[in-house]
Amino acid sequence: MSELEANNIRGEIKRITKEILRLAAERRSLSLKIGDIKSKLGLEVLDRRIEAELLNDSLKYAEELGLDRDFTRRLISLLISDSVKAQEEKVDRTKEVGLREIFYMALELEKSGRKVIRLEIGEPDFTAPIDVIQETCNALREGKSRYLSSYGIIELRRGIAERINTIYGTDFKPENVLVTGGGVMAIYISIQVLSSLGDEVIVPEPAWPLYRQIAEHLGRRYVPLRTSLEDKWTLRNGMLQENVTDSSKLLIINYPNNPTGRALSLHELKNLVEEAHECGLTIISDEVYSQYYFHDSYAPSIVQILDSGYVLVGSFSKMWGMTGYRIGYLIGEKEFIDKAAYILGLMITCIPEFIQRAALKALQDDEYVKKNIEETKKRINYILNMLSRNSLIKVYPSDGTFYLFPKIDLPAFNSSDFALNLLKEHSVAVAPGSGFGPYRQHIRLSAVKPIEEIKIGLEKLNQAISLLQ
Amino acid sequence: MSELEANNIRGEIKRITKEILRLAAERRSLSLKIGDIKSKLGLEVLDRRIEAELLNDSLKYAEELGLDRDFTRRLISLLISDSVKAQEEKVDRTKEVGLREIFYMALELEKSGRKVIRLEIGEPDFTAPIDVIQETCNALREGKSRYLSSYGIIELRRGIAERINTIYGTDFKPENVLVTGGGVMAIYISIQVLSSLGDEVIVPEPAWPLYRQIAEHLGRRYVPLRTSLEDKWTLRNGMLQENVTDSSKLLIINYPNNPTGRALSLHELKNLVEEAHECGLTIISDEVYSQYYFHDSYAPSIVQILDSGYVLVGSFSKMWGMTGYRIGYLIGEKEFIDKAAYILGLMITCIPEFIQRAALKALQDDEYVKKNIEETKKRINYILNMLSRNSLIKVYPSDGTFYLFPKIDLPAFNSSDFALNLLKEHSVAVAPGSGFGPYRQHIRLSAVKPIEEIKIGLEKLNQAISLLQ
Repeated sequence: MSELEANNIRGEIKRITKEILRLAAERRSLSLKIGDIKSKLGLEVLDRRIEAELLNDSLKYAEELGLDRDFTRRLISLLISDSVKAQEEKVDRTKEVGLREIFYMALELEKSGRKVIRLEIGEPDFTAPIDVIQETCNALREGKSRYLSSYGIIELRRGIAERINTIYGTDFKPENVLVTGGGVMAIYISIQVLSSLGDEVIVPEPAWPLYRQIAEHLGRRYVPLRTSLEDKWTLRNGMLQENVTDSSKLLIINYPNNPTGRALSLHELKNLVEEAHECGLTIISDEVYSQYYFHDSYAPSIVQILDSGYVLVGSFSKMWGMTGYRIGYLIGEKEFIDKAAYILGLMITCIPEFIQRAALKALQDDEYVKKNIEETKKRINYILNMLSRNSLIKVYPSDGTFYLFPKIDLPAFNSSDFALNLLKEHSVAVAPGSGFGPYRQHIRLSAVKPIEEIKIGLEKLNQAISLLQ
Repeated sequence: MSELEANNIRGEIKRITKEILRLAAERRSLSLKIGDIKSKLGLEVLDRRIEAELLNDSLKYAEELGLDRDFTRRLISLLISDSVKAQEEKVDRTKEVGLREIFYMALELEKSGRKVIRLEIGEPDFTAPIDVIQETCNALREGKSRYLSSYGIIELRRGIAERINTIYGTDFKPENVLVTGGGVMAIYISIQVLSSLGDEVIVPEPAWPLYRQIAEHLGRRYVPLRTSLEDKWTLRNGMLQENVTDSSKLLIINYPNNPTGRALSLHELKNLVEEAHECGLTIISDEVYSQYYFHDSYAPSIVQILDSGYVLVGSFSKMWGMTGYRIGYLIGEKEFIDKAAYILGLMITCIPEFIQRAALKALQDDEYVKKNIEETKKRINYILNMLSRNSLIKVYPSDGTFYLFPKIDLPAFNSSDFALNLLKEHSVAVAPGSGFGPYRQHIRLSAVKPIEEIKIGLEKLNQAISLLQ
């Protein structure tokens, strides 16, 4: 009797499922119509405000219907992304040459014996201090190369917490710290913990391209907010509020900034994160360049402003020249750290103990960092001076990092073509601005080579730009 | 005019979206009714065959409607998972103590000064050979700690390809190899590349619990196929075919097997992978214990059977005692490796070069592996001999790995309670069988301690089991 009843209900479910599909198809064809109209009117495919309104209405209606909130979010975001896909199939996207291509091309040229001036690289030209290398070797010899907790060793977690506490007067405990495989893993994990499929991740641009790549790979919607050199690379007041929708979940900020070299004053940072919190956003603050700060010893940090509602991403890569060690960290509330540690365990089990010992040693060597940052500052100033001689070049004067993001004031300038040509013809590698957002009039320069080399590179750069006029 | 038209269409889209939600709610309440009937009849919540039929029908219908196949899969899997969730909320699940808990508890006891006999651990008691440690230090001193390609260094990729080619007579190129952060990262990435959200990942059980955890974390459906000691831990003929649905995408196999010590002969492996291919499954063959094989130098490998339709997971952890180095590899077709390398880049940028140099060195030291495996074999035989004295214990005699998975022939035996008690009362740590599937009559023993220690541990184990009678 009951089995029969179940079968009847199953038949009903089948019918409803079919009906849902039919409606989805109808919905899709209507979206295509709108797409046609938009392309006639020259409008963008994505219409976030309308989408967000739809989601909001749907959530209210779903609540009346007794549907699960998370289910509804996923369903609506699936329907929307199908519409967007349908419309986008009609839009032509040309693939531009990015940093990755220039990087590999420069490597190839070097292998073939050519001397290339590498101003595109995102890593310092110094490596870890000798005592850090020595410590790694000691740890290896002592057999510190076994499985361990995915949280990281307690000594390093404590060391990182204490360092932040000393600098910023905070009160973090080891339980607030997770040791990660570099800043990139910290971002990858944070996005997973702090947002769901289909959620929006907001990122001020220009930005490190990995934010977009990671967010999209994880099925999140990447929402860039464009800033400009003319606005000193800051978000206009209210810009966040104007752009936030009900789907917006995360804001990723990165000050001192790659690629612009812009840092925020404590006051500016405070305004930004408070606006973000008013918008209901959780913040991922990527502070991997925090000591590359030219106005003080340490750049202002989000930990000075908020007690909760954010996570901090840190790294040993840029400050101690430990890029290839792959070690960084996350700071956040214990509940977040627990979830993040679980995911890290699924990705890599744990970070090698001998590398964690190396990082612990590095923490004791602040002098090394300071010395290298002094040198970087000299180089940045040198580049700024060289660029100022070319009236076609405009640039933000830099607060920190080892990058500059000059604009070449020629309307038709195309950073991809230019970078490609500069590398091929003049053996100078720079990163095309279009790799960091719609910034084809910009290039990114890294101050990670000795001044003599930078000099030659910039002379060729200036020369190549003159030829464009 | 057009803007008005667009607004009308948007209104229509809104109406359809609402209608879809209304139907989803209706669908959900029908599912709840079925759930009630099922629980009255004592049936399981999951009804994979019916679900698969629904998906299949839906895909056909969607094609007629011109809907995207991937979109349809995601939509149906979302609807199904909502039904399952609705039904499961009524089912009570009790949390059992697993390997992780025993591992951390054993660590805590050791820290408190107690001597614990650790037979639960999944790693050998030897570390990397001294020349590997030396090589790591040399590489560090030479500054081999910078960003590099996410594929891994060409020397190591070539070395791994050549090793497999030499052993199995295959013809892999460096382009078929990706260097990963251990076997776990290889699995994490492979599941992402080879399947989509909602797809089924089939795993013969008992199995390493991480397969389930990773698959579920990534939004895949984990489908265990239970094998038993009585069936010599093999899948019955046709079992795969009976259980495969249209949602089934991947099969993960692991021979020599953790936890059972079962390996497949080349003939058995051939039958299994051919059946899997007939079912349309892609195979992830986790061969991290390949040299822990007691009938020959190397266990049979999937590379001897198939040209495509699989990926191989390998690792330096177990064979060279390099667990904490976090280095392993994937072998597969170039197209797969390219996608996998992209994802690895988003997760960790690259694997540290000095660790890759260490692995390259390890490849040259097969003698070290052989010596250690000889020792493991002795220990396994010793344990088998000890267990045979207890008539309550039945065990598969082991083809490889350093594990044994004995069954305690007492109907009420509960491996979680037993392991907890054994650790607390007798200071012996073993892994509960229930961590590897529904195997509460089993425990996992690791032969990773000297025989003198194993002896004491097993005496206490036998004693504790006798007390249960």
